[in-house]
Amino acid sequence: MKSDVEIAQCTTLKPIEEVAEKMGVGRSNLELYGDYKAKINEDQNERFDEEKNGKLILMTGISPTPAGEGKTTTSIGLADALQKIGKNAAVAIREPSVGPVFGMKGGAAGGGYSQVVPMEDINLHFTGDFHAIGAANNLLAAMIDNHIYHGNPLNIDTRKIKWKRVLDMNDRQLRHIVDGLHGKGNGTPREDGFEITVASEIMAIFCLSNDIKDLKEKLKNIVIGYTTEDAPVTAGQLKAHGAMAALLKDAIKPNLVQTLEHTPAFVHGGPFANIAHGCNSIQATKTALKYADYVVTEAGFGADLGMEKFINIKCRLSGLRPSTTVVVATVRALKLHGGISKTELEKENIQALEKGLPNLLQHLEIMQETFGVSTVVAINKFPTDSEAELEKVAEQCREQGVKVVLSEVWANGGSGGEELAQEVVRLADQGSQTTFTYDLKDSIIGKLEKMVQKVYGGKGIELTRNAEKEIQKLEALGYGDLPVCMAKTPFSFSDDPTKIGRPRDFTITIRDVKLSAGAGFIVMLTGNIMTMPGLPTSPSAESIDVDDDGKIVGLY
Amino acid sequence: MKSDVEIAQCTTLKPIEEVAEKMGVGRSNLELYGDYKAKINEDQNERFDEEKNGKLILMTGISPTPAGEGKTTTSIGLADALQKIGKNAAVAIREPSVGPVFGMKGGAAGGGYSQVVPMEDINLHFTGDFHAIGAANNLLAAMIDNHIYHGNPLNIDTRKIKWKRVLDMNDRQLRHIVDGLHGKGNGTPREDGFEITVASEIMAIFCLSNDIKDLKEKLKNIVIGYTTEDAPVTAGQLKAHGAMAALLKDAIKPNLVQTLEHTPAFVHGGPFANIAHGCNSIQATKTALKYADYVVTEAGFGADLGMEKFINIKCRLSGLRPSTTVVVATVRALKLHGGISKTELEKENIQALEKGLPNLLQHLEIMQETFGVSTVVAINKFPTDSEAELEKVAEQCREQGVKVVLSEVWANGGSGGEELAQEVVRLADQGSQTTFTYDLKDSIIGKLEKMVQKVYGGKGIELTRNAEKEIQKLEALGYGDLPVCMAKTPFSFSDDPTKIGRPRDFTITIRDVKLSAGAGFIVMLTGNIMTMPGLPTSPSAESIDVDDDGKIVGLY
Repeated sequence: MKSDVEIAQCTTLKPIEEVAEKMGVGRSNLELYGDYKAKINEDQNERFDEEKNGKLILMTGISPTPAGEGKTTTSIGLADALQKIGKNAAVAIREPSVGPVFGMKGGAAGGGYSQVVPMEDINLHFTGDFHAIGAANNLLAAMIDNHIYHGNPLNIDTRKIKWKRVLDMNDRQLRHIVDGLHGKGNGTPREDGFEITVASEIMAIFCLSNDIKDLKEKLKNIVIGYTTEDAPVTAGQLKAHGAMAALLKDAIKPNLVQTLEHTPAFVHGGPFANIAHGCNSIQATKTALKYADYVVTEAGFGADLGMEKFINIKCRLSGLRPSTTVVVATVRALKLHGGISKTELEKENIQALEKGLPNLLQHLEIMQETFGVSTVVAINKFPTDSEAELEKVAEQCREQGVKVVLSEVWANGGSGGEELAQEVVRLADQGSQTTFTYDLKDSIIGKLEKMVQKVYGGKGIELTRNAEKEIQKLEALGYGDLPVCMAKTPFSFSDDPTKIGRPRDFTITIRDVKLSAGAGFIVMLTGNIMTMPGLPTSPSAESIDVDDDGKIVGLY
Repeated sequence: MKSDVEIAQCTTLKPIEEVAEKMGVGRSNLELYGDYKAKINEDQNERFDEEKNGKLILMTGISPTPAGEGKTTTSIGLADALQKIGKNAAVAIREPSVGPVFGMKGGAAGGGYSQVVPMEDINLHFTGDFHAIGAANNLLAAMIDNHIYHGNPLNIDTRKIKWKRVLDMNDRQLRHIVDGLHGKGNGTPREDGFEITVASEIMAIFCLSNDIKDLKEKLKNIVIGYTTEDAPVTAGQLKAHGAMAALLKDAIKPNLVQTLEHTPAFVHGGPFANIAHGCNSIQATKTALKYADYVVTEAGFGADLGMEKFINIKCRLSGLRPSTTVVVATVRALKLHGGISKTELEKENIQALEKGLPNLLQHLEIMQETFGVSTVVAINKFPTDSEAELEKVAEQCREQGVKVVLSEVWANGGSGGEELAQEVVRLADQGSQTTFTYDLKDSIIGKLEKMVQKVYGGKGIELTRNAEKEIQKLEALGYGDLPVCMAKTPFSFSDDPTKIGRPRDFTITIRDVKLSAGAGFIVMLTGNIMTMPGLPTSPSAESIDVDDDGKIVGLY
């Protein structure tokens, strides 16, 4: 069997001008990055118009398990399948982060016969967006410490600086540092730390900006910390936002590449799905919808997390609405939700499946009842799935009014997803009326309670004393009207990753609160969120190489 | 008077394909980065042949002063002038570092009517080379600490790690840090620090590699530190070089842009001129020489530093040889070398000029006698220069057999440099026989002594006890045959920046020694070298901005 990179390198790519042309994007709107990557340079003032544009298909999944569900692969394969059945389709997904590529994960550009290419480029620097985001983040950091060094006129409390530096690298050594050491010519000693670039608030701002003006406004609003009197200090007060925007001016233009079947693929932006909203940029989604009739896009994790943020944050800030949704599941993952172990997945086990199915059913309920959008279940089929198992899934979903379709896009590309494409088109053409889960005018606590009850299916919330104080402070400072961004484990509807399946009667504990005033949301931390990963004992970097002709090997 | 960015933005650029075509580089050898930047994708196996290729003109200057000499501007203007007199010419210079752009310096892409464009792009991320270099550097750093974290089988002594992390940012707060804090899940506490990306050994390797194979070999040879038994530990032992090369595979292709007069400009690589050799990449120079008949390139600082390294390091490693050289000077700077203050420069002062002229004359001597190459003096003319002053410079140089030509390329572009171009062509066509200053087989001390006597005009060297021990250690480890890379103040021929003009009877003190085994040289530190700059009280970042149409403003 061929590896992903081998499949990708065997494919003859079309020049990106051709891929763009097919969609109606002319050469003058392209900024090429080599022959197979481009940025689309649109008139920033030409506004997005929902009526005249394509239909947005949102891909999500069941609560993830170690078995893997294949959401990105299914998104790419579905776009190819839509092309196959004669539709003008595109896919819009996140850019992979370089750091994890050198750790365990390997590439993140789909898999098998449903990939975006050139996969090596997309997985490494691509068009440089993440480097630009890192530079903007670190310029602000340097300006903060430089302000303090030169007398600190804004009276920034060095113990209350929230802004961290970033690198796109898995580097645990930098998580907790003390910097500014070695005498007064070298800064001010203080506790500090690095995060991975995708965890930066700049990444979230980048993805949530409608245009360059909006980007600058958001950058200006970033709260980097507090004064000794607890007043917030913004990037605007440090006069950093203009230069930060200058560093981002090219990066915010959406990237265009292609799938293995030459379907246009917008790969742009990649915020974390816990401390941020977890989906590709608004600009990429809007540009895709302007040119394609059907755009498949992916939200991080399940309906309780990525999809919820897609609706309550991205849709709210952009005017975008999904026309329909797809929930990706596997029989194997559902059996894991039923409580059996990873070694028992090959055997038929209807009982475990029945016990795990409520996880899927709750995701469907969230779609239909909470968000008011139609949905279809895509089962990523494995050879070990039995007929009886597949029938059981179909039967239970049918009772909830949702069709189940088998997807074989990993093995067969677009032709493995034609039935799914047909159902998606049927649902998308009917349209949906999206409902937000809470009102921005609700109190922060009110928003959290609605979230737990209407999305997670739990009883209510608890707050640590610290979280309570922080929420009061943010409301007093006038940040109470922002949406909330939940940093919760994706593995359970609850805040306890071991409560798989469909837990009941739980409460969610908010442990800490983090203001992302620039991005425009308040992050609610329900546990420790790792914002700087480490490398494993044998990192994949050890086997990644480039041959004498400049071809990448060892990247999976 | 228009600012640099205003002049640059008023110019109508030609599509980069056209600029390349004029030189004979076809579209299939170009990887476009937008419409006005490209990388040249050459067959790595097609070797450079000195006989069949163009003539290399090396630009250097007198010992720099606060008055500024305009070396980059003269290099660009001379290439334009060569085009103007009908020659097929190109310029090859360094890429600017982003960090200083946000500090005091502003842009570094020439000035006035002698600039390379698009200057905003070149000064910001350009084609992403420096980000790639930073990523490769930091991947190695992460792999070092990850190795230690997972049991440290190579027995790396955490107190003897020489490899630092980098950012392309002026950020003094990161000069000295303690990282790996917060318990054993988060690394190993140790003293550490960041440098600016251009100071990374990867930058030097990048610029000194002849092809991707050579790049990998050099990366493999990097010594990151020592074991508890003082054995060197290499990047190859950490299996990091393949993935590092993968991160650099596109970056090492030379960048092509254009001057304001559409002359092809290779802008590629930008190593420090103190702890590294300070000139653009070998690949860029070779590619330029393959297509252009006359290639103007710039060495950092004066003949004692940048030029010396160009000859003894870059030429030795690449086979390149300059056909002739240009020494840039200003009457104002020569008067400063004569000991008067910056406020007295507007007035005619033949006495000060006469006192300062020996600085220029020694640079000419180094060219002619030490390196055996022909030379011409280019005087960057200022309105305050008197006829008598200009005649004095001409007279003294004439006595040494060197012609002085006035250059007005800053104000007039290529047409301000035609006389210079004529003299350069005359000298280049005669050719030169370059002589190295020392033999690689000389002992390290022997190399240093030849350097001081033949280049700096001093008496000899002194070593600190630490430097002496380090030199013995490196010779014992087999690194004695490497060239030396002098980290010395550029302001004086001696190691004391206040000894301007032409100092005599001095000794040079080697305070510390740094092995760059990957780049292939040993750095000799004569003082403290700042490898991470800081920002000033009012950094230029505060005024850099981007307007609603995405146009950069405030960048000078």
